[in-house]
Amino acid sequence: MQNVTVSGDRLWRSMMETAAIGGTPKGGINRLTLTEEDRAVRDWLTEECQTLDCHMSVDEVGNMFFTRAGTDPTLKPIAIGSHLDTQPTGGKFDGILGVLAGLEVLRTLKECRYETRHPLMLVNWTNEEGARFSPAMLGSGVHAGVFDRHYADTRVARDGQTFSDALEAIGYRGKIRAGSTGMAAMLELHIEQGPVLEAQGKDIGIVEGVQSMRWYDLVIEGVEAHAGPTPMDLRKDALLVAARLILLIENIAKLHAPGVGTVGCVDVHPNSRNVVPGRVELSVDLRHPRDDQLDVMEADLRNEISARLKDGFAITLSEHWRSPAVKFDPLCVDAVAEGAAASGYSSVRIHSGAGHDAAYVARIAPTSMIFVPCLGGLSHNEAESVTKGQCLAGAQTLLNAVLHLDRVLVARAGNAPTSPTAYPPDP
Amino acid sequence: MQNVTVSGDRLWRSMMETAAIGGTPKGGINRLTLTEEDRAVRDWLTEECQTLDCHMSVDEVGNMFFTRAGTDPTLKPIAIGSHLDTQPTGGKFDGILGVLAGLEVLRTLKECRYETRHPLMLVNWTNEEGARFSPAMLGSGVHAGVFDRHYADTRVARDGQTFSDALEAIGYRGKIRAGSTGMAAMLELHIEQGPVLEAQGKDIGIVEGVQSMRWYDLVIEGVEAHAGPTPMDLRKDALLVAARLILLIENIAKLHAPGVGTVGCVDVHPNSRNVVPGRVELSVDLRHPRDDQLDVMEADLRNEISARLKDGFAITLSEHWRSPAVKFDPLCVDAVAEGAAASGYSSVRIHSGAGHDAAYVARIAPTSMIFVPCLGGLSHNEAESVTKGQCLAGAQTLLNAVLHLDRVLVARAGNAPTSPTAYPPDP
Repeated sequence: MQNVTVSGDRLWRSMMETAAIGGTPKGGINRLTLTEEDRAVRDWLTEECQTLDCHMSVDEVGNMFFTRAGTDPTLKPIAIGSHLDTQPTGGKFDGILGVLAGLEVLRTLKECRYETRHPLMLVNWTNEEGARFSPAMLGSGVHAGVFDRHYADTRVARDGQTFSDALEAIGYRGKIRAGSTGMAAMLELHIEQGPVLEAQGKDIGIVEGVQSMRWYDLVIEGVEAHAGPTPMDLRKDALLVAARLILLIENIAKLHAPGVGTVGCVDVHPNSRNVVPGRVELSVDLRHPRDDQLDVMEADLRNEISARLKDGFAITLSEHWRSPAVKFDPLCVDAVAEGAAASGYSSVRIHSGAGHDAAYVARIAPTSMIFVPCLGGLSHNEAESVTKGQCLAGAQTLLNAVLHLDRVLVARAGNAPTSPTAYPPDP
Repeated sequence: MQNVTVSGDRLWRSMMETAAIGGTPKGGINRLTLTEEDRAVRDWLTEECQTLDCHMSVDEVGNMFFTRAGTDPTLKPIAIGSHLDTQPTGGKFDGILGVLAGLEVLRTLKECRYETRHPLMLVNWTNEEGARFSPAMLGSGVHAGVFDRHYADTRVARDGQTFSDALEAIGYRGKIRAGSTGMAAMLELHIEQGPVLEAQGKDIGIVEGVQSMRWYDLVIEGVEAHAGPTPMDLRKDALLVAARLILLIENIAKLHAPGVGTVGCVDVHPNSRNVVPGRVELSVDLRHPRDDQLDVMEADLRNEISARLKDGFAITLSEHWRSPAVKFDPLCVDAVAEGAAASGYSSVRIHSGAGHDAAYVARIAPTSMIFVPCLGGLSHNEAESVTKGQCLAGAQTLLNAVLHLDRVLVARAGNAPTSPTAYPPDP
């Protein structure tokens, strides 16, 4: 297996070539989903894959699939890929590395005339970022049945254009039904977007799952008062309670490591220098790899809030959004571990703190992810930085993991579909 | 002295009559300085004073003086008054009570044919609120030499109009030089704008001075990071430091009671739910009756900030504005105490936590203030509420204090000017 090696140089050239599509002066990419830039990079990918004897299909929400046949026509494809859309001031690696490393895997296998048993399918998911059309991970979400096509079509951008109109405008509305493209498994390579691998000096993160996440709105109401004439003991300063709760959330997270807790937004009313704040609104973001531990973190927070109500403040904590923990398929996770070990890369098992297309795909197919470090954990930023060597390590691990999975998946009972996979028709 | 009593009903009628000039549906007043509404209430006051045998003069920044002659033409007048301008959503009492109670004092003395030795001078200061033209207390500030006329004239409102143009437009540019109107002393009746008198059940606040005040900008810089993938121990969360400093400021104030400390503004960057805050800006407002104690409070804050710098955060505390402590004249303060006692009102010595015209006037003449409670300490709000009985108590205390001061001031050596007071010419 170690004899089949990807080309780090070729991968890097593709990264840099496509980075020019929507490239920004600061070295990032502005390639919002379903724009002319997105069309251009989709066209580029289509053209590249035409040289690789792949069957191309596009589903009704623009998800793109390029399938290379395997030796066993009864098997569903193993999917590899990620997304090519970016934030408005995004970097050159987020999502893109996963798609272009997948392309590099296909190129390498063709070059070596290596035949897998399963078909291999390169995927480019539509609108992972959610920066133009909210919510994020929309294409993979429709594929996995989390959202329906109508919901996706009716999302509206700030410029007033609907997802449906934007998709038609760039010519990437496919005819096949979303979700009808079967997968035996999926592996997604992605940059970590966090600092753990760099801090631990590891090449590869073996992603075991995605953290359980909950967003809350926390509102504290005290009594607005003049800052000058109001003695400290006659105040009901909502910001003092907010400060205590911010530190409490830090403590709760530390007590439940590896859980994390973040207050990202603070809105103070009236936000005037000489007025004691009467009302403070906080956002609270709690995450933990385990749902039951997140339940405990939330209960700790609610208990402390209850304890403070007696001081005469009105405090409400309301859930804004939640995403349950995702546990990736052990076979896929092990394939990633094997893939890293096969090429001698150091690795550590890790949970993703952010959402990814793989988190939705995991609902319908065995899935895992491969993380590579990014400089300082920085992402969603034009300064996002990953070295050529780190890209290579990710792509090689992906290739190794795919080949491993190709062997072990066929060995697993019940994996074969009842009938041979019918490739979806062209868009 | 107790035989001379003001009319609470007449005072209340004047309060309610003028409250209609700029009156708001919610029961407040929108009477910004140098607007048509301000002109209307100035016209009203001028007309009222014409019936009281007063000499009217207006200075070059629109401060209005109505002088009732005393029996000793060598004495400067004792000034009483405050301001008639309001915040855009102001109440019916802030400033207004001081002017109309002064008017009620003049009415009462005329009615009783009571002759004081000093002339009595009712004053309406221009632009106390600073809501249309910043800074606040502009008219009294020019009078006291804190600002010059040119500075005042060139202040610009949000609508683009200068102070100079607005003053000319309403016809209240007087010809006499600001500051040339001499005063033997000044007493200003005002609502407390804080909760202390109400909490202590006192009728009258004997104001000994105005707190020393300092405003600071406190900026904390950490490192922005994704809330999901960044473990707690790898964060540099600027908001956690901010929360600790907010609570520290509370502690410093409590340790230095009656000092107060307030964080009124919080600006978090980027203020996004799932981003660990990289930068937080806080406003800090510290006040204490004594400048030297405020120095200690500031030093405590600076020491704590220094201690936290070692954690890798950049923290800067910069002074934005300061106003030193004002100590009112003991004779004037005692006159207020005598004035309250003479009519059996309960009273307590207090420091003003907010700025007032009297704070500037105190730089050039013996001064004190009389506070009356307002409901819940609420002010700068259409719901500002003071009872008729509280207004009466303030006006009666003002009358008693003026008559007391009229006696004790003549007894004080060096008070008489070298030449008889020349009344300023008409505007």
